[in-house]
Amino acid sequence: MRYDPAEFLARDDISRLQLSRLRTTCERAARSRLYARKFREHGVAPEDIKSLDDLRRLPFTTKQDLRESYPDGLNTVPADQMVRLHVSSGTTGTPTVVYHTASDVRWWSSLVARCMRMVGMTPADVFQNTTSYGLFTGGLGMHYGAELLGCMAIPMGAGNTQRQVKLIQDFKVTALHIIPSYALYLADYLARQGLDPRSLGLRIALVGAEPYSEETRRRLEDIFGFKAFNSYGLSEMNGPGVAFECREQNGMHLWEDAYLCEVIDPVTLEPARPGQVGELVLTTLCREGMPIVRYRTRDLTRVLPGPCPCGREHLRIDRITGRSDDLIIIKGVNIYPIQIEQVLMSLPEVGQNYLIELTREGHIDQIRVKAEVREEFFVEDMRALAALRERIAHRLRDEILVTPKVDLVEPNSLPKSEGKAVRVVDLRGKE
Amino acid sequence: MRYDPAEFLARDDISRLQLSRLRTTCERAARSRLYARKFREHGVAPEDIKSLDDLRRLPFTTKQDLRESYPDGLNTVPADQMVRLHVSSGTTGTPTVVYHTASDVRWWSSLVARCMRMVGMTPADVFQNTTSYGLFTGGLGMHYGAELLGCMAIPMGAGNTQRQVKLIQDFKVTALHIIPSYALYLADYLARQGLDPRSLGLRIALVGAEPYSEETRRRLEDIFGFKAFNSYGLSEMNGPGVAFECREQNGMHLWEDAYLCEVIDPVTLEPARPGQVGELVLTTLCREGMPIVRYRTRDLTRVLPGPCPCGREHLRIDRITGRSDDLIIIKGVNIYPIQIEQVLMSLPEVGQNYLIELTREGHIDQIRVKAEVREEFFVEDMRALAALRERIAHRLRDEILVTPKVDLVEPNSLPKSEGKAVRVVDLRGKE
Ligand SMILES: [Zn+2]
Ligand SMILES: [Zn+2]
Repeated sequence: MRYDPAEFLARDDISRLQLSRLRTTCERAARSRLYARKFREHGVAPEDIKSLDDLRRLPFTTKQDLRESYPDGLNTVPADQMVRLHVSSGTTGTPTVVYHTASDVRWWSSLVARCMRMVGMTPADVFQNTTSYGLFTGGLGMHYGAELLGCMAIPMGAGNTQRQVKLIQDFKVTALHIIPSYALYLADYLARQGLDPRSLGLRIALVGAEPYSEETRRRLEDIFGFKAFNSYGLSEMNGPGVAFECREQNGMHLWEDAYLCEVIDPVTLEPARPGQVGELVLTTLCREGMPIVRYRTRDLTRVLPGPCPCGREHLRIDRITGRSDDLIIIKGVNIYPIQIEQVLMSLPEVGQNYLIELTREGHIDQIRVKAEVREEFFVEDMRALAALRERIAHRLRDEILVTPKVDLVEPNSLPKSEGKAVRVVDLRGKE
Repeated sequence: MRYDPAEFLARDDISRLQLSRLRTTCERAARSRLYARKFREHGVAPEDIKSLDDLRRLPFTTKQDLRESYPDGLNTVPADQMVRLHVSSGTTGTPTVVYHTASDVRWWSSLVARCMRMVGMTPADVFQNTTSYGLFTGGLGMHYGAELLGCMAIPMGAGNTQRQVKLIQDFKVTALHIIPSYALYLADYLARQGLDPRSLGLRIALVGAEPYSEETRRRLEDIFGFKAFNSYGLSEMNGPGVAFECREQNGMHLWEDAYLCEVIDPVTLEPARPGQVGELVLTTLCREGMPIVRYRTRDLTRVLPGPCPCGREHLRIDRITGRSDDLIIIKGVNIYPIQIEQVLMSLPEVGQNYLIELTREGHIDQIRVKAEVREEFFVEDMRALAALRERIAHRLRDEILVTPKVDLVEPNSLPKSEGKAVRVVDLRGKE
């Protein structure tokens, strides 16, 4: 793929582009049933957008809005101009749907290709996509980007670890798209097979679709010998390709020529203070078939201050701390699972697999953390294990402000999954 | 997608194009390790191709050749010029691999789009792909074709029938890609749900990936109210898009600008007599990264005589009778499972699901056919059932020249599968 000049746009040009595209987006959106109504209710019209600050005059869009608009209330063009439809798995209630025109698919692919090029992938790379294809946007999204960049894409899909490894070996795969929990699973699998993960020769991992901690990234890089880059996207905003780390690995550049970014306080809905963590709100700037205005992603992050040494001026967001949905409330304290993961993964004695159980004993909520101990540390010395357990409980308490019960278990004894791992089991009210 | 003039090429133009492309193909192929050796061993060089008859001077290529060339012995360009890799599931031994350049993917997509347009699909169609994505070529192959044609593609993938039905209903799907055994399964599923398959409003089904009989096609058309078109392809030749029925539903036009077709006697390897069934042998004419010369597909068919009323001059092959691998030999008689299917599906009393069991009693091979009887015919009247059993056994005997044992079983009592159905179980030597 040819060099993409939008990657290195200067701040002034970004702002100019954003304003003109925001206006177009609002004009398009006004043709949809949802926004025709919302704009009317908010007393705002596309021609009111005269500066980027006028963004705040527009209404927010929530997941609930998308559900209520099922199946096509956000569409701005007739169905025969659409070429693709993705549907969320909809585990809870009505699924959400995203329609794409041919132009939308081209835009999406070019953003993904831009991310890949930014982290150093070239047509000489062999790219294996280990996430599922079909309706999940991480499959086709990454696939189209890789093909556009010109590297060789192996559409492996999810699961079947034995085959994943064989293809990586036989076709000299250099780059993977992988979800963090599967990367941890793969590390365990290779250890059980007596294979050195570094012998696979992987150079780059694109890691996304689940929040995960810096400690896990460092651990994965150490095990596999690749550089792992954080990928951020959500199906409502196409999927992957919204924001991506550059080789500095210090925050994810959000492609501001395609998305307009806000961070808000999820309670007051006012803009977060500079550098403060809040809910990410995104507006599509290039989407034709189904533009979305001020979408409340429920993902928590903050805008990182200062310029990036790489020279790109697209703003950087911090790694996602969690989704507002992931929040665990124990004894009145707010905890994100990623805080627990971060502590566990910083300890060399702890293996790749862990589980958080929430229980209620009497009227008191309890949090129990089960962690696998690595083979070489799982000794018969009960005193050493007890000391380790003690240490973990202390470190967790410092992080989450609640003292959890800690169980140390044998390697490979917790439930495994080749898909997204289930890390939190809430047994409260079910006993 | 714009009109594709190659669809209506005249015979003379086809031949001229084939000769020039065959020469290019041989020149390219000679750069691969496999063909450099094979051409040398056969004492043939690309410049020896002076007419289409010279095709017969070239060596055949077998599945075994592909396996021995694993992973890249057929490649003619460096890996960094490849953009896609598909690997066969390789249930038996080494998998076979097909590499594609960007041009190869474009060609493949344009052939699939041509098939879709030929059967009457337009950008106004909503297309649901019910086969699996990832490495299986029916997923991405059909998907790229549909997007190129400009219809809306729903990348549903295989399985999850409840969801398949919901998407068909909610998004007013008009065209499906479906394997025949899954179409039968879907019919049963809808019946169990009390849903009328015709209420789905499906217009067109692209049916392939398994051999199936004309009787099954008529039954599916009757149940669903769609027109079902036979699709032929194999991963070695990209996947779908090799040959496809036109709206006459009388043989599949094989796209001769992209594939050179022979039918041979699989024993003597001589050309089959005109109209005689034999093994289909294909040569790629447009493939850049990995051309294949005279590939023995092991699929059995014949070239249909005479012009097609639709006016297309690309030759037509008959529906695939079976793969040489599917052959069942019972008491010295050759039987293809499709012959049994054809008899069963012609009987309105028989349901959508059946199973063929091969057993050995003493030293004598037996064939047992288990067929589900439809609810309204599964009466308590033992005499009526016995008469039906008798009739089926007679019809089968006329078709396969062996008298099978016939078991009539209750509706929904045989094993079901959302994937390819297992229709033949060989228990000989396993008892
Ligand atoms: Zn940077
Ligand atoms: Zn025709």
